[in-house]
Amino acid sequence: MKEYFNNVSKINYEGPDSKNPYSFKYYNPDEVIGGKKMRDHLRFSMSYWHTLTANGTDQFGSGTMVRPWDNVNDKMELAKARMEAAFEFMNKLDIDYFCFHDRDIAPEGKDLAETNKNLDEIVAMCKDLMKKNNKKLLWGTANLFNNPRFVHGAGTTCNANVYAYSAAQLKKAIEVTNELGGENYVFWGGREGYETLLNTDMGFEMDNFARILQMAVDYAKKIGFKGQFLIEPKPKEPTKHQYDFDVATVLGFLRKYKLEDYFKINIEANHATLAGHTFQHEICLARNNNALGSLDANQGDPHLGWDTDQFPTNVYDTTLSMYEVLKNGGIAPGGLNFDAKVRRASFEPEDLFLAYIAGMDSFAKGLRIAYKLLQDAPIENFIKERYSSFSTGIGKDIVDGKVGFDELEKYALENNVINNKSGRQEYLESVVNQYILEDK
Amino acid sequence: MKEYFNNVSKINYEGPDSKNPYSFKYYNPDEVIGGKKMRDHLRFSMSYWHTLTANGTDQFGSGTMVRPWDNVNDKMELAKARMEAAFEFMNKLDIDYFCFHDRDIAPEGKDLAETNKNLDEIVAMCKDLMKKNNKKLLWGTANLFNNPRFVHGAGTTCNANVYAYSAAQLKKAIEVTNELGGENYVFWGGREGYETLLNTDMGFEMDNFARILQMAVDYAKKIGFKGQFLIEPKPKEPTKHQYDFDVATVLGFLRKYKLEDYFKINIEANHATLAGHTFQHEICLARNNNALGSLDANQGDPHLGWDTDQFPTNVYDTTLSMYEVLKNGGIAPGGLNFDAKVRRASFEPEDLFLAYIAGMDSFAKGLRIAYKLLQDAPIENFIKERYSSFSTGIGKDIVDGKVGFDELEKYALENNVINNKSGRQEYLESVVNQYILEDK
Amino acid sequence: MKEYFNNVSKINYEGPDSKNPYSFKYYNPDEVIGGKKMRDHLRFSMSYWHTLTANGTDQFGSGTMVRPWDNVNDKMELAKARMEAAFEFMNKLDIDYFCFHDRDIAPEGKDLAETNKNLDEIVAMCKDLMKKNNKKLLWGTANLFNNPRFVHGAGTTCNANVYAYSAAQLKKAIEVTNELGGENYVFWGGREGYETLLNTDMGFEMDNFARILQMAVDYAKKIGFKGQFLIEPKPKEPTKHQYDFDVATVLGFLRKYKLEDYFKINIEANHATLAGHTFQHEICLARNNNALGSLDANQGDPHLGWDTDQFPTNVYDTTLSMYEVLKNGGIAPGGLNFDAKVRRASFEPEDLFLAYIAGMDSFAKGLRIAYKLLQDAPIENFIKERYSSFSTGIGKDIVDGKVGFDELEKYALENNVINNKSGRQEYLESVVNQYILEDK
Amino acid sequence: MKEYFNNVSKINYEGPDSKNPYSFKYYNPDEVIGGKKMRDHLRFSMSYWHTLTANGTDQFGSGTMVRPWDNVNDKMELAKARMEAAFEFMNKLDIDYFCFHDRDIAPEGKDLAETNKNLDEIVAMCKDLMKKNNKKLLWGTANLFNNPRFVHGAGTTCNANVYAYSAAQLKKAIEVTNELGGENYVFWGGREGYETLLNTDMGFEMDNFARILQMAVDYAKKIGFKGQFLIEPKPKEPTKHQYDFDVATVLGFLRKYKLEDYFKINIEANHATLAGHTFQHEICLARNNNALGSLDANQGDPHLGWDTDQFPTNVYDTTLSMYEVLKNGGIAPGGLNFDAKVRRASFEPEDLFLAYIAGMDSFAKGLRIAYKLLQDAPIENFIKERYSSFSTGIGKDIVDGKVGFDELEKYALENNVINNKSGRQEYLESVVNQYILEDK
Repeated sequence: MKEYFNNVSKINYEGPDSKNPYSFKYYNPDEVIGGKKMRDHLRFSMSYWHTLTANGTDQFGSGTMVRPWDNVNDKMELAKARMEAAFEFMNKLDIDYFCFHDRDIAPEGKDLAETNKNLDEIVAMCKDLMKKNNKKLLWGTANLFNNPRFVHGAGTTCNANVYAYSAAQLKKAIEVTNELGGENYVFWGGREGYETLLNTDMGFEMDNFARILQMAVDYAKKIGFKGQFLIEPKPKEPTKHQYDFDVATVLGFLRKYKLEDYFKINIEANHATLAGHTFQHEICLARNNNALGSLDANQGDPHLGWDTDQFPTNVYDTTLSMYEVLKNGGIAPGGLNFDAKVRRASFEPEDLFLAYIAGMDSFAKGLRIAYKLLQDAPIENFIKERYSSFSTGIGKDIVDGKVGFDELEKYALENNVINNKSGRQEYLESVVNQYILEDK
Repeated sequence: MKEYFNNVSKINYEGPDSKNPYSFKYYNPDEVIGGKKMRDHLRFSMSYWHTLTANGTDQFGSGTMVRPWDNVNDKMELAKARMEAAFEFMNKLDIDYFCFHDRDIAPEGKDLAETNKNLDEIVAMCKDLMKKNNKKLLWGTANLFNNPRFVHGAGTTCNANVYAYSAAQLKKAIEVTNELGGENYVFWGGREGYETLLNTDMGFEMDNFARILQMAVDYAKKIGFKGQFLIEPKPKEPTKHQYDFDVATVLGFLRKYKLEDYFKINIEANHATLAGHTFQHEICLARNNNALGSLDANQGDPHLGWDTDQFPTNVYDTTLSMYEVLKNGGIAPGGLNFDAKVRRASFEPEDLFLAYIAGMDSFAKGLRIAYKLLQDAPIENFIKERYSSFSTGIGKDIVDGKVGFDELEKYALENNVINNKSGRQEYLESVVNQYILEDK
Repeated sequence: MKEYFNNVSKINYEGPDSKNPYSFKYYNPDEVIGGKKMRDHLRFSMSYWHTLTANGTDQFGSGTMVRPWDNVNDKMELAKARMEAAFEFMNKLDIDYFCFHDRDIAPEGKDLAETNKNLDEIVAMCKDLMKKNNKKLLWGTANLFNNPRFVHGAGTTCNANVYAYSAAQLKKAIEVTNELGGENYVFWGGREGYETLLNTDMGFEMDNFARILQMAVDYAKKIGFKGQFLIEPKPKEPTKHQYDFDVATVLGFLRKYKLEDYFKINIEANHATLAGHTFQHEICLARNNNALGSLDANQGDPHLGWDTDQFPTNVYDTTLSMYEVLKNGGIAPGGLNFDAKVRRASFEPEDLFLAYIAGMDSFAKGLRIAYKLLQDAPIENFIKERYSSFSTGIGKDIVDGKVGFDELEKYALENNVINNKSGRQEYLESVVNQYILEDK
Repeated sequence: MKEYFNNVSKINYEGPDSKNPYSFKYYNPDEVIGGKKMRDHLRFSMSYWHTLTANGTDQFGSGTMVRPWDNVNDKMELAKARMEAAFEFMNKLDIDYFCFHDRDIAPEGKDLAETNKNLDEIVAMCKDLMKKNNKKLLWGTANLFNNPRFVHGAGTTCNANVYAYSAAQLKKAIEVTNELGGENYVFWGGREGYETLLNTDMGFEMDNFARILQMAVDYAKKIGFKGQFLIEPKPKEPTKHQYDFDVATVLGFLRKYKLEDYFKINIEANHATLAGHTFQHEICLARNNNALGSLDANQGDPHLGWDTDQFPTNVYDTTLSMYEVLKNGGIAPGGLNFDAKVRRASFEPEDLFLAYIAGMDSFAKGLRIAYKLLQDAPIENFIKERYSSFSTGIGKDIVDGKVGFDELEKYALENNVINNKSGRQEYLESVVNQYILEDK
């Protein structure tokens, strides 16, 4: 097979002191931590769109990316070249999983029938390459936002023909994901929201959105798709308001429409921060509601108000998110998908590798630290002690549902002195620092 | 009775051309619009805390407010003076309703028993004044955030004794609200959230919060309280993260704990914007979920990241919020409570009147415009036409649940050409402008 | 000449009660206000890029716009079709001015020489059309951000060859602007900033930026260009940090490099809000520093963190910005350029007209209100009175520079009682409301 | 002397593996790094207000702090107790410097004369304690924001009597700072800004502000004060807009009024982020303009829009800020003042120590990493290479001012092919990670 990235060899673990940029400092895939290989803890996934398809355009400038397949003009040939390059890329980085939108891997044709035919051809090729290279599909999804037909939404469009088209595209994307053994299927509603309430029937749109999700549930059962369905929240962008604003919003939506048994949540770090939350908050909330599905590993810029999708390099964030993942008993069948793009100024093919190494090492380090933090348990023990008054006496009665207002008023009138203890936030932050800085 | 605000006489409607600052330009309480008096559409309420108790401190400066009761030193005498002044204030502004926290109207004593006694004494006085002045209680609430005992929360504290105290205080506040015929009771969780996840068991805290709400429901049934329970969302401040982040979050929470039949939502404009939403969005979302309870009428500053609680003077916002209220069939048993404070630099007693006039006129004008907008229906008609493809054919089948992925794929394959129509946002904004600027 | 927008006739003033969407409600170009025609107060300008070139792409979707020249494929023919359409558009809306980037009006060729040749050909055509249609160029500018060569900046690039190219392109753009009698020339530094300090020498880049501006000043003198040079601030986007952050930053930069006599400022509303300021603040600050050059008339969304460039329809903003413009003695030789784009969902050609009407009417109404506010002077009189203590006695001595710390300490020790007066913010906001709502 | 913090002994360096919360893990004051002791690199300072005076109130709750001097009621006795405790605190933490506002250390009296007398009494005591304990004053300042008299500003007030009072207070504060050998004097304009432009003459206020600063310069010369004058920027809070918005704004202001030779800048991390900048950006910008004065060491929360003044524990920020400090040749005569407060829930006296340890260790670690980063120079070398095209040929001619538009156009026409290189952001971020995580 043709080699695309001929300047870069396979990336190996060389440890933290290595000066070789093309090496892992913290990610040692087959090293065992807590009885599980790092690769199985982290379940890294390549995002097809950012890695193979993106060209570096932004709202004020055209594409900058230099790619080995730049001279391929035929759309299907280009799709095939990218697919080959994708597997070379995963092999060189020892990444086991990938994710894609239907339109990332195959071009639209003159009509839906031809589009589906294009997709089938590439999927067959992909399936073959997966087998040969021992790679797995973390999740598939449908791109229901790029094409102008989705200008007013897909499952929340005002146009019934677009709704029908969206359903048809979803159907095919689920079939294709099933065909490739996808372990999950993601719904990200890029245009499922509104630009202005002046032209929008929000209630009707959300009802319609629930309908199309229910159809997806029904269809998955019908075809025997065993993967997990995931909804990916985002508060805004491209639309002014997106209905899947954040984890809490999605949970409320699923409960309203009796869909909570069928969907978990795919949480993206940058979407979390755009909604005003930390990544850890969103993961913790999903975990507490038995809804943690998968993670989109990236980071935003705290001073920028749009989705920058940067490669995750902040070890505070990777540590605290892996902390939640470990408390969840792991992320499978989800994984850590690098929904991250190299900066527009990092336009050389080598930057793709350097960026993935940066992200993979940051999460590997986060895993190492989080594991040790949970083993030693300074945080867990502090919390346990902090809430201990609910383990006995009146506290236990409260938790056990044995008391109401009358009993509690009586208790309060008889117990006038209240002693609180410090929450010790600054101390706990320095403890985390010690673990981050001194993990060996 | 003593007159406190002797520089200001009763405020009358003088119409938009009046140059008298102490007159209403748009609010004519007994004028009938759409078969209902303006006062009954708007159900204006005085907020006791901002009007009678607040002194103008901020994080960088001490109190500035000059008030007629400044020379009263005894805490109970001060409480009584403020109560008298409150009714004078409502009378002069022709406001029918008020809202309070338990600790606004009566001081804490040396223990809970004495605190309750203080409260009872003032409540009796209040009840008498309500009767004499024909004023009503829109809602009562408990202040579970100011006292240091609530430093780690009230219903979400880590300290069982504080939890018991909170329950006791809630019990009393509901009783007092009941005694005064309160039409609603509000839960605002000022400290129900967290400062850092490093010391917090979020799942446990939310379970406990649901428990205390359930106790409140049970107790209200027991004592026959007929008022509506309301939860007031706020995303942050004072805590880093508040569990009642926004309307969508609260809906999800209520559904999880099977509390949705017992609570509606009290939406504050400034809390909406702090959560990244417009006031209209939050009202519309609550309306669509049959959860619109009451409104806290104020406004924030789009460039400031904290709760500025300004008097609402932006007529775009008052128009679009009243538009949603009218579509909801009115706001009763809720109302429009001015949870708004005069700026620290507006420290003269007269400013209280000028500020309420500004706010009341802005909402009165908003009501007038919204009513006309709904009568003429340029927006409603546009929306109706925009979604018309769901009224017949495949669209109707979708809404009626008659089709699934198979039928829709078949339809999509047979209907390749998709025609969308412009959403006309700019035109619709200019239509709204015409109604705002030309309402007579 | 071919007619492009054949569904839309010339737009006329029909007054506020007109139900014709294709009419002006407030903009009556030749009506005289304060001794000057509305058209001369407002000096409206069409932005070439948003009106003729933009296609509706966003970061998550491809172009949606339907345009009469969509079927023209040859790049130069397309450029000519757009130029013809531009004049038809200005004529139908009675807009006197336009603005362009060099690359909006003519395509790049195979090298700079061919690119310049393309530009010359279109400029000649444009000059002819300007004469025939009596239209004027408000300002020209160079697009130094779209092409990949500017990936690291233009005047702040790390690559000397790119710097040279930028200088050459600037030179040509100034020549072309001069050729067309441009009344101003704008510098907007789309890539003049940084993505990360880890690879940036900020001090060097700012020195280099000053050098290229000085070269522009020198060259303008050399060729006798009489237009005003303008810098347009923006805080971020596309870069993480842009050096021309806001008006205050630009003023400081110009002073450092002794450029303040040669540049004024082009203030965009949406850029102001992205920097955390109101549009009025930025205009007022520029006015106070004798640096108000021109305005980019648009608006952002307070809940979105990127440059939405919406058509300006908020009459509060148009009123308060025209208030500052009137206090400045007008905006000439600058103008009001609609740096605004129709929403991606407003994709029909008619939307261009509806959007311009919305924006023009909003500013026309703002002008009417602001003029009356200045005539009646309720705000001006309040301010005059508020600062009156600086007109006599110790206040006058302070302003006249007659006193220092010794004299003021002596005065303060002798004058212990300090009386402040209320700032009356809420009252002043209601006064503005009355003028906005009751302007006839 | 009385011991106040009797539960805490002197804090010693015990190295990173220590499990003793009351020890330094990274701060070893007399360890030499790069020829200078850590204490002289860092010049840590205790903030008097947050450490001795603050009580934990926030906008929604009263004070929570438990302090050893809580039972002292007489105002002057309280001031003395706090002063004694301050020196004990500095001794136990081995902090060499402190900072104060005039009103932190001594209470206001019935008039300015008595207030000054109170201040003199405490200053004499302080001077004595400084000598005995070998402590130094990093900077003094005047509190011109808390008292209601400053409701409309101090140097930017609309009331000439308040202006005179402010000048008198400033005079005294500078004298007192001089008396105590203060190495700097800081101007932070808590109320120097506006709430609304509707009642504000912004140009007049800024002129007046420059006048009072000029008076301060004149007076310092007169009395022979040798300390450095510093302005501290903040964008907003408590006022809606503060005139000293950020470093760039202050630089422009100083240049306008010819004050740039007399003032440098005191940069606070949390103020930087509220203005939309990183701490590093502000320090770098000041450094590039020879205006880096001193640092207020704290951190904000990226999701909260107000000044949280948290203790700095983010090692990315401490590393990158110390990197700039080292490039500046050190921070003296400025220092690192902990303008940071323990969280309201960290109310025990011990938390003060734990929080300072957290902050001091974080900056000590940052210093260690930054020093090594500069020694090895991976970033510096990358940047040097990146800009190398400006060291020879056309690039050197540009920098040397030898070429203008004509020469550069000629060059550009002759050099069509432009080669840019990747900015390598992701790689550089991973390099920084390696230094942070592997510094030994």
